[in-house]
Amino acid sequence: MTRGWSRRRFLAAGAAGVVAAACRAERAQPTLLGAARRGYGERSPFERSTRAFRVSSTPGTASSRTPLQDTYGMITPSSLHFERHHAGVPAIDPSSHELLIHGLVEHPLILSMKDLRRLPSISRIHFIECAGNSAREHEGRPGPDPQTSHGLVSCSEWTGVPLAVLLQDVGLKPDARWLVAEGADACHMARSIPLQKALEDVLVAYGQNGEALRPEQGYPLRLVVPGWEGNVNIKWLRRIQVASGPAMTREEAAVYTDLMPDGTARMFSFVMDAKSVITRPAGGQRLDGPGFYEIEGLAWSGRGRISRVEVSVDGGRTWRDAELQEPVVSKAFTPFRCAWTWNGREAELQSRCRDETGYVQPTRDALIAMRGLRSGPDGFDHYNGIKAWRVRSSGEVTHV
Amino acid sequence: MTRGWSRRRFLAAGAAGVVAAACRAERAQPTLLGAARRGYGERSPFERSTRAFRVSSTPGTASSRTPLQDTYGMITPSSLHFERHHAGVPAIDPSSHELLIHGLVEHPLILSMKDLRRLPSISRIHFIECAGNSAREHEGRPGPDPQTSHGLVSCSEWTGVPLAVLLQDVGLKPDARWLVAEGADACHMARSIPLQKALEDVLVAYGQNGEALRPEQGYPLRLVVPGWEGNVNIKWLRRIQVASGPAMTREEAAVYTDLMPDGTARMFSFVMDAKSVITRPAGGQRLDGPGFYEIEGLAWSGRGRISRVEVSVDGGRTWRDAELQEPVVSKAFTPFRCAWTWNGREAELQSRCRDETGYVQPTRDALIAMRGLRSGPDGFDHYNGIKAWRVRSSGEVTHV
Repeated sequence: MTRGWSRRRFLAAGAAGVVAAACRAERAQPTLLGAARRGYGERSPFERSTRAFRVSSTPGTASSRTPLQDTYGMITPSSLHFERHHAGVPAIDPSSHELLIHGLVEHPLILSMKDLRRLPSISRIHFIECAGNSAREHEGRPGPDPQTSHGLVSCSEWTGVPLAVLLQDVGLKPDARWLVAEGADACHMARSIPLQKALEDVLVAYGQNGEALRPEQGYPLRLVVPGWEGNVNIKWLRRIQVASGPAMTREEAAVYTDLMPDGTARMFSFVMDAKSVITRPAGGQRLDGPGFYEIEGLAWSGRGRISRVEVSVDGGRTWRDAELQEPVVSKAFTPFRCAWTWNGREAELQSRCRDETGYVQPTRDALIAMRGLRSGPDGFDHYNGIKAWRVRSSGEVTHV
Repeated sequence: MTRGWSRRRFLAAGAAGVVAAACRAERAQPTLLGAARRGYGERSPFERSTRAFRVSSTPGTASSRTPLQDTYGMITPSSLHFERHHAGVPAIDPSSHELLIHGLVEHPLILSMKDLRRLPSISRIHFIECAGNSAREHEGRPGPDPQTSHGLVSCSEWTGVPLAVLLQDVGLKPDARWLVAEGADACHMARSIPLQKALEDVLVAYGQNGEALRPEQGYPLRLVVPGWEGNVNIKWLRRIQVASGPAMTREEAAVYTDLMPDGTARMFSFVMDAKSVITRPAGGQRLDGPGFYEIEGLAWSGRGRISRVEVSVDGGRTWRDAELQEPVVSKAFTPFRCAWTWNGREAELQSRCRDETGYVQPTRDALIAMRGLRSGPDGFDHYNGIKAWRVRSSGEVTHV
């Protein structure tokens, strides 16, 4: 109780007489007996929040966004984890799935899922974010709600074998510098990753939030590359080739590059920089009149731990520190919260985060001064500007 | 890579020729294009692990156990969270659900779910464990697998309003010492909790693992009482009455007490002491011949952080330290892991944990010397002895 609000500040208006109250409570409660027993549970039928899809004209290509305004805490429910697939979601039988590790290695290997589960494993909580998340903000077409504007990011507890264990096992040849990871989807999605990162903290993951990966997340096996753009976290992982340089696949040469103002392309812009977004109150929501509200949101950084989040309710003129949810985990969602008493007048809510490297989330103007407004062939990537929401005097919240 | 195994120790046997291997990998992979787009995802149809039910002769009374041998990391999937209900799982419409806070308070209150979501909130990762978990071990009927022996415990990220915020808001009268929490299920399950605990870390929770509570976990509202026996974590929470003493409800007077050797009952034995269980390799599993295995398990304590887990492969004669999964969170699952090279001979696996208070998980013999073998009216509660699994030379793993 250290956040400095005083007794009865929140709910004074709601305190009805207790006798009437007790009767009402008694009347309203159901006393149903029993319900179907479910070996594998489902959510309440009253809960209807879903991922929102964008379908491309290319067959099998789609993306869906997490309803961040409806989620709580650092873990994103697996059922609501965003997805992005370029050639559908393959239906893979894990008993026949194999991972091949070859190339510049002493002892190439094929591993079954059963082999992998015998090996040393680890669990880590990490966000995965599509490089194109919040690109609309860059373009100047701000998303009307957190799902639309920032929903291409989610956070899970991933479990799997450290890639370093596998690479140690196969034995790297002296000129090994990169690896190429390839998926078993119809387009054989492939990306190159420097060996240094692979040895640092990359996982060959089979678990997500306590159970097997969801099909949309790469069942039965995906690469988890903490803090790096979603596309390199290869799903339906079937092959890792160790090489002396990057493969220059389509997904790293033609797209997933950032076009700079001078027309050159920033290539291998892997890391997702620090970003934050207020999820409540946020666009698409409505405040029920003046009074106490908690401002809540999420911050994350591909470079390490979030060290600070500041919140402004006056369009960035003044800022105050938000409380960070413990434990603060490196390269994971860090929920933040800040008490706010709304006076009923128009307000503009913003959040600004900083990570342990000292990097501070920039304004849109600062980003555009540096990166320009020329879209790459696949649109904008790596936008992480400060997001603003306008609270109107009606209580309606919209984008700015 | 600090765990001390040497290069190619794991997989030497599996290294097939790379050419044949590559062909095989190519052949085995599906290249299906597309799959149904699902707003709310489901697991792969190849995944079939479920909760296991025990149904009582009393209508609406049942319990189900988490398949701990199939879960990963610290988060239990909400769909596999154990459940225990005494009068069915009510189907509650959150728009009409209310929480009444009354009794020895200055300003009684009724809160809607909407009211609650405006208030200061917090997320915390905590296990919830039924007091009766692993009672079979006490009785001398050891569970044949981790689900049967220890499956009445699960761990989630819970989100909600600190109860201290609500109690501060209603204003406690001077003689307030306890509270009684009551559920909206057909039996109006009620338990008493000392006020000191309520002010310390109890949550009025509406969120579980990033979304609304599951119906079996109390949708739309439950009390989360970190580290205390499951039954006091009142589900479908509808009423909190502040009082000067405990209510002595059926669930704390007739049952959920521990019968001692002298015939007296240990009452208000709320805290779940430190416990651990090896989940892989464990009963019901079979090892594929000698070689490397990772011994994995879970440890937890209702008194704080797990500080150490030791593993024995020789029936408790020698012990070595297991690696603890970071971050180690107070009153939460702490996964542990330990490398093991099985020589093919019979082995007995055990784990023993210690928490930050210095408490060490006891042997069954030590527990029985203290607590006896007389069952209470509802069976045994609060058993936390060391669990052993026997690995037979055939590779089969059974209980001891």
